[in-house]
Amino acid sequence: MRHRGRAAAGDLATSHEGADRPLLIVHTGDMKGKSTAAFGLALRAWNQGWSIGVFHFARAVGRRPGEENALRALGRLHEQTGEGGPVTWHTMGLGWSWSSRADLADHEIAAAEGWAQVKRDLQAQTHDLYILDEFTVPIRWKWVDVEDVVETLAARSGTQHVVITGRKADPALIEAADLVVEMQRVKDSAAARSTGQRGIEW
Amino acid sequence: MRHRGRAAAGDLATSHEGADRPLLIVHTGDMKGKSTAAFGLALRAWNQGWSIGVFHFARAVGRRPGEENALRALGRLHEQTGEGGPVTWHTMGLGWSWSSRADLADHEIAAAEGWAQVKRDLQAQTHDLYILDEFTVPIRWKWVDVEDVVETLAARSGTQHVVITGRKADPALIEAADLVVEMQRVKDSAAARSTGQRGIEW
Repeated sequence: MRHRGRAAAGDLATSHEGADRPLLIVHTGDMKGKSTAAFGLALRAWNQGWSIGVFHFARAVGRRPGEENALRALGRLHEQTGEGGPVTWHTMGLGWSWSSRADLADHEIAAAEGWAQVKRDLQAQTHDLYILDEFTVPIRWKWVDVEDVVETLAARSGTQHVVITGRKADPALIEAADLVVEMQRVKDSAAARSTGQRGIEW
Repeated sequence: MRHRGRAAAGDLATSHEGADRPLLIVHTGDMKGKSTAAFGLALRAWNQGWSIGVFHFARAVGRRPGEENALRALGRLHEQTGEGGPVTWHTMGLGWSWSSRADLADHEIAAAEGWAQVKRDLQAQTHDLYILDEFTVPIRWKWVDVEDVVETLAARSGTQHVVITGRKADPALIEAADLVVEMQRVKDSAAARSTGQRGIEW
C-alpha cells in the first residue's frame, strides 16, 4: 500500500526538483470552504492511488456525513477493484466523541488521543494525505500543544502531505505551513443564510 | 432520477422556510481552492442522491483528471448499486476542446456551446447540482453574455443549485449570487511553489 502510494506520488514529479516534497497546507478563514476544499483534494489523492487518512477533530458527531460516506465509498471501491487509493476515516467515537454533554476534560482527552493517533500514523508512514479537519480548534484551546504539532510535522518522513483546516490557525502553524489559503466571505445573502447550515453544507 | 434528487433535497429541509431554495454560489479569488471546494460540495451532493452535472470550462484538456476520475467512479457506483447520485462530467471535447492551437473563434464557439448545454439542462431540470468550473473566464472574455447568464439562472426552475468557479468573477455575477467565497493566498512558500501546478493540484 505504501509502495503504491509512493509510486503514485513519484508519478507526480515534474521537471522541478523536489516536486514530491511533502507539503503542509493550512485552510483557514471564516468560510466553510476550508474543509470542503480539503476533501476536494482527497479526490485527486484517491485518483493517484494515495492512502488517505481523515482525522475529524470536530465538536459534534456526524457533521460531515456527505464527505464521509462518499470517501468511504471510494475506499470500498479501492478494496474491491484496486481503483484509486484506500481511505481511512477516523470518526470521533470512542474517546473522540465530543458530545455536548461531555465535560471539558473529556474533550481534552479526546483531542489528545486523536493527535496521538496522527503521530503514530505519521511515524509509520501510514498515509500519503492526512486531512486534520478542524484541527485548529484543539490547538487554540491548548488541548494539543502547537509546538509539538510543528515539531512533529517538521520531522515527518517520506512524502506525507498534511492538510489542516479550521478557523483562526495558530501563527506558529501559519509559519510552518508551505501553503496557507484563507477562505473569506465576500457575500452571504439572506437567502443563503436562511437555508441554515445544512443548506450550505449539504 | 429527478424524483430521487428532489426527495433528497427535501430531506435537507431544516426548520427554516425555503431551506431547499436553489442557491447560486460563486467561488472566486486567486487561490486554487475555488474548484477544489466545488468538487468537495459534490461529495455531499452525491451522498444525498443528487444528480451532479460538471461543466468544465477550462482552456486545457485533462486538467482535472483526479476529480473527474473520482467523481466518475462515484457515478458508476451509483449506476451499479443505487448508492449516492448520478454524475455527468462534460469534458471539453468536440467543440469544447480549447487546445492551444485552436484559434480564438474556436474557443468562443466552444464556450457558447457549453453554455447552451447548461441552459438545456437547466430547462430540463436534469441536475440538482451544477458545477460550472472556470466559467468566469468565458464570461470575462465576452464569449458568454453575463446578462444572459444572470437572467437564465434567475429564471431557473426547481431547486437546482449552481456553483460557478474562477478568478475575477463579473460584478453582475457577484450581485446575483446568494453566496460568494473568495479564496485568498495568505502564504505560498518557495517549497510549495517549487512543486509546480501538479504538486498543489495533485
